Amino acid sequence: MKQVKFLLDEDRIPSHWYNILADLPEPMEPPLNPQTGQPVGPQDLSALFPMDLIEQEVSSERDIEIPEEVLQYYRQWRPSTLYRAHNLEKALDTPAHIYYKYEGSSPVGSHKLNTAIAQAYYNREAGIKHLSTETGAGQWGTALSLAGVAMGIDVQVFMVRISYDQKPYRRAMIETYGGKVIASPSDQTQSGRDILAAHPDSPGSLGIAISEAVEVARLRDDTNYALGSVLNHVLLHQTVIGKEALLQMEMAGEYPDVVIGCSGGGSNFAGLSFPFVGENLRNARKTRIIAVEPASCPTLTKGKYAYDYGDVAGLTPMMKMYTLGHGFVPESIHAGGLRYHGMSPIVSHLFHLGQIEAQAFAQNTCFEAGTQFAQTEGIVPAPESTHAIRSAINEALRCKEAGTGETILFNLSGHGHLDMQAYMDYNAGLLEDHEYDVGEVEHALMELPSV
Amino acid sequence: MKQVKFLLDEDRIPSHWYNILADLPEPMEPPLNPQTGQPVGPQDLSALFPMDLIEQEVSSERDIEIPEEVLQYYRQWRPSTLYRAHNLEKALDTPAHIYYKYEGSSPVGSHKLNTAIAQAYYNREAGIKHLSTETGAGQWGTALSLAGVAMGIDVQVFMVRISYDQKPYRRAMIETYGGKVIASPSDQTQSGRDILAAHPDSPGSLGIAISEAVEVARLRDDTNYALGSVLNHVLLHQTVIGKEALLQMEMAGEYPDVVIGCSGGGSNFAGLSFPFVGENLRNARKTRIIAVEPASCPTLTKGKYAYDYGDVAGLTPMMKMYTLGHGFVPESIHAGGLRYHGMSPIVSHLFHLGQIEAQAFAQNTCFEAGTQFAQTEGIVPAPESTHAIRSAINEALRCKEAGTGETILFNLSGHGHLDMQAYMDYNAGLLEDHEYDVGEVEHALMELPSV
Repeated sequence: MKQVKFLLDEDRIPSHWYNILADLPEPMEPPLNPQTGQPVGPQDLSALFPMDLIEQEVSSERDIEIPEEVLQYYRQWRPSTLYRAHNLEKALDTPAHIYYKYEGSSPVGSHKLNTAIAQAYYNREAGIKHLSTETGAGQWGTALSLAGVAMGIDVQVFMVRISYDQKPYRRAMIETYGGKVIASPSDQTQSGRDILAAHPDSPGSLGIAISEAVEVARLRDDTNYALGSVLNHVLLHQTVIGKEALLQMEMAGEYPDVVIGCSGGGSNFAGLSFPFVGENLRNARKTRIIAVEPASCPTLTKGKYAYDYGDVAGLTPMMKMYTLGHGFVPESIHAGGLRYHGMSPIVSHLFHLGQIEAQAFAQNTCFEAGTQFAQTEGIVPAPESTHAIRSAINEALRCKEAGTGETILFNLSGHGHLDMQAYMDYNAGLLEDHEYDVGEVEHALMELPSV
Repeated sequence: MKQVKFLLDEDRIPSHWYNILADLPEPMEPPLNPQTGQPVGPQDLSALFPMDLIEQEVSSERDIEIPEEVLQYYRQWRPSTLYRAHNLEKALDTPAHIYYKYEGSSPVGSHKLNTAIAQAYYNREAGIKHLSTETGAGQWGTALSLAGVAMGIDVQVFMVRISYDQKPYRRAMIETYGGKVIASPSDQTQSGRDILAAHPDSPGSLGIAISEAVEVARLRDDTNYALGSVLNHVLLHQTVIGKEALLQMEMAGEYPDVVIGCSGGGSNFAGLSFPFVGENLRNARKTRIIAVEPASCPTLTKGKYAYDYGDVAGLTPMMKMYTLGHGFVPESIHAGGLRYHGMSPIVSHLFHLGQIEAQAFAQNTCFEAGTQFAQTEGIVPAPESTHAIRSAINEALRCKEAGTGETILFNLSGHGHLDMQAYMDYNAGLLEDHEYDVGEVEHALMELPSV
C-alpha cells in the first residue's frame, strides 16, 4: 500500500509558534516612523494593534505559546494533511519524491485563517470591537471575516475595486461570514477620496486599500487594523504549517532537500519554510529554500533592498525590504495575492543574507503546472499556489535529468474553487504573460522615502 | 480539550461496500424493460454498463469488496472527517450532540467521487474508452471527469443548459480535469434535436440530459454511460461514508438517535444512512433515518409510488419509485442536485416500508440554516447540503424544547464554494420559496407508463 497522506493527531498541533527572529545570523533593521524617521516604538503601533501582537512583532523568544482558545479553533482543520504526490511523480517520470502540505482544507480554503484566528483573538482580549482590513484576491478578507464572527468582532474589508467587481463569489463568502465589504478606493476615507478625485475610475490596489483600512482604524478607539501578511507576527502565526510538516516528514521517513512556497507578502512561504530555515541555521541542515513570485511582480528577483512604505499613501511605518516601489501597480494577473510591491522584511532579510533563493514565473506556465497537478492529484490549486507547483515540477524534472532522487516539499496554500475564471481564461488561451514594466519600476523606485 | 474531529487512519477505510439488498425485510420489485414491460436482464443493461456494475446492481451479497486500485484513490481524501459541531450546539443552546460527516474534503468538493472512481475503474477494466453522462448542479460531472482522467477514459458531460449558462465555474472545473462539456439539449443526439425542434429555448432538465447521454452510449461500442445517483450500484459505492461514520461514532463514544441526509436521487443520503439502516434491521437499533428534500421537488413527501422512467425520453428502464412523473420539471432552485423527478428505488422501497422518514423544506429556510452553520462551523455548505443542516438544526431545537440530549448525525455532502451565487441571492433577499406545482405534478403523473 502506497501511503499518500500523513496525518497527525489533534494533540500534535504545535503548542508554540516558531519565532525565527531568535535564530537570525544578523539582526534586522527596525521599521521607521514615517514622520520622524526614528525607529518605531510600541506606542506608534498601539493605535492599530493590540499590545500582545506588538510584543510578538519584536519578540526574541524562539517559541511563543499558542493560546488555548486559538488552538481550539485550529482543531477545526489542523493539523493539515501532508500528501505524497505519487500520481504527479508518475506523470513526470521523476525519481524525485514530491510532498505537499495542503492548507486549502481550512474552511476558508487557504492558510490565511491561521493568523486571522490569532489576530482576532488578541484583539478581542484587548477589548476591540471592530477590525478593518484590506483584501486583494479575497482570501484574507474571507479568513478575517470568519475569525471575526468566531470572536465576536465586526469586520470591515476594503476590497480592491477590480477584485470587488471581478470576484463576486469572494465577496459573497465574506458577507456570508458576516463581514462588511467596501470597494476601494471608497468615499469613506480621506485616502480613498483623494484617489477618487484624481482617478475617478481607479481600479484600486492593495497599497490603496491598506491606506484606507489603516485610516479607519486610526480614527476610532474601539477599532484596530489587521494585516494578512508582511509583518513579523503574521508570519509567526503561519509557522504552525512548517512545524507540523517537520513532524509529518519524519513520519514519512524523509527530510526535504528543497522547500518551496509562493510569495506575495511572504506569509505562506514563511509559514512552511521558516521552521526548515531554522533547522538550516541551528542544525547545519542544507535544505534549499525557494520563494516563488510572479514575473509581473518580481519583488525579490528584480526589486531593490531599501526602506519603503507598506502602502500607497505612506501611512504605515517604513520597512527595510525588497520593493518595487510603493507606487508600483503590478499588472492584473489572476494571482491577486501575489500582487504586492514589497516583501516581508524577514523574508527580505533572509534573501539578502543568502539563506533563501527566489524564482519568478509568468502566469501561463504556472497554470499549465496547476492543470497538470489538478489532473494528477485532484486538487485544483489557487492561482497563487500554481507558482509553487511550477517550481516543484521544474525541480523534479531537474532531478529526472540528473538522475537524482531528491525530496521536494511545497506549500499548497489554497484551492482555486473561487478563482475558476482564471482557469477559464487559461483554457481559452486568453491569459497574457506580463513582464514587469521596467520604466514603471524605475519611476516608483525614485519615489522611495529618503531615510 | 474538546475534541472536534474524529479521524480514522488510512488503513481503516472500509475494505467492502455495504449492500443493503442483503438485509431488506421484503424484496424489491425489479426494473422493467420499457419496450417489453418484462424485468430487465443483464443483456438489456450491457450496452450501457460493464458487467461488474450490472452484477453489483442485483447482487445479494452483503459485503462487496472494494478493488485495491479504487482504495488507493480513496486514500487521497478518505477516510473523511467526522466533526462534532460544538460551536453550532452552543449557538443553538441545545442539549443535543450534533455530528457531521464532511464529504466536501474530496478534491472535487462532494461525495460524488466515491462512486465516480469506482465506475471509471470498472469501465476501464472492461476496455471502455469513453464515458457519457449528464450533470445538473455540476458536482457529478466534475467528479466523473476527474475519475476519467485518473483511469485514462475520456468523459463527455451533457450539462443541463441553464446550469451551463449560470455556472461557468463548474464548467471550468470539469474542463480543467479534461472533461468535455456539452449544453443539453444539444444537436448531437436525436433526443436533443427533438426537444430543440419543439422548444428551441429549452433550459434543459436532468431527465433530458440523461436521455442524451444514454443515447450516445448506446450508439458506440467503446462508450458506456455513467449515472451519479439513483441506481443500486451507485448507492452501494457511497456506503463507505456510513461505514466510516459507524467507526467514528464509536470513537466518539456515542451512537446516533437521528441520521439525516439531503436527498435528490438519494446517493449521499443512502451513503451515510444505509449502514445505520442495516443496524436497525439486523441489530434492532432504533435510529430515526431522515431524508430531506426541497419543497419544490418533494418526491418522497408528495410523489406517487409507481413505475416510471428515469429520463424524459423514456430510454431508461422503468423503475418502481416515488416519482412526480418523468415529465415534471421542478422550479430552478439553487440546489440543482435535488431537482430530480424520481427517487432511488431502494430509498423509495425503504420509505414505503416505513424504515425511513422524509421531510421537505423551502430554500430560504435552508440557506438561513446554511449561513448559521457557516458562521459557527466555518464551512460554507453546498445548497443541497443546507437541507440536511435545516433538518439537523430543527431536530436539535426540538431536543432543546424537550430537554432531551439526543445524538444527531448528518451528512455534509459538499461545500458551496462553486455555488456562491446562491448565497448572494439569499443575502440580497432574491430567493423565492417555490412550492411544487400541484397541477403540473398531476399532469406529469397522468403520463406514467402503463405497466
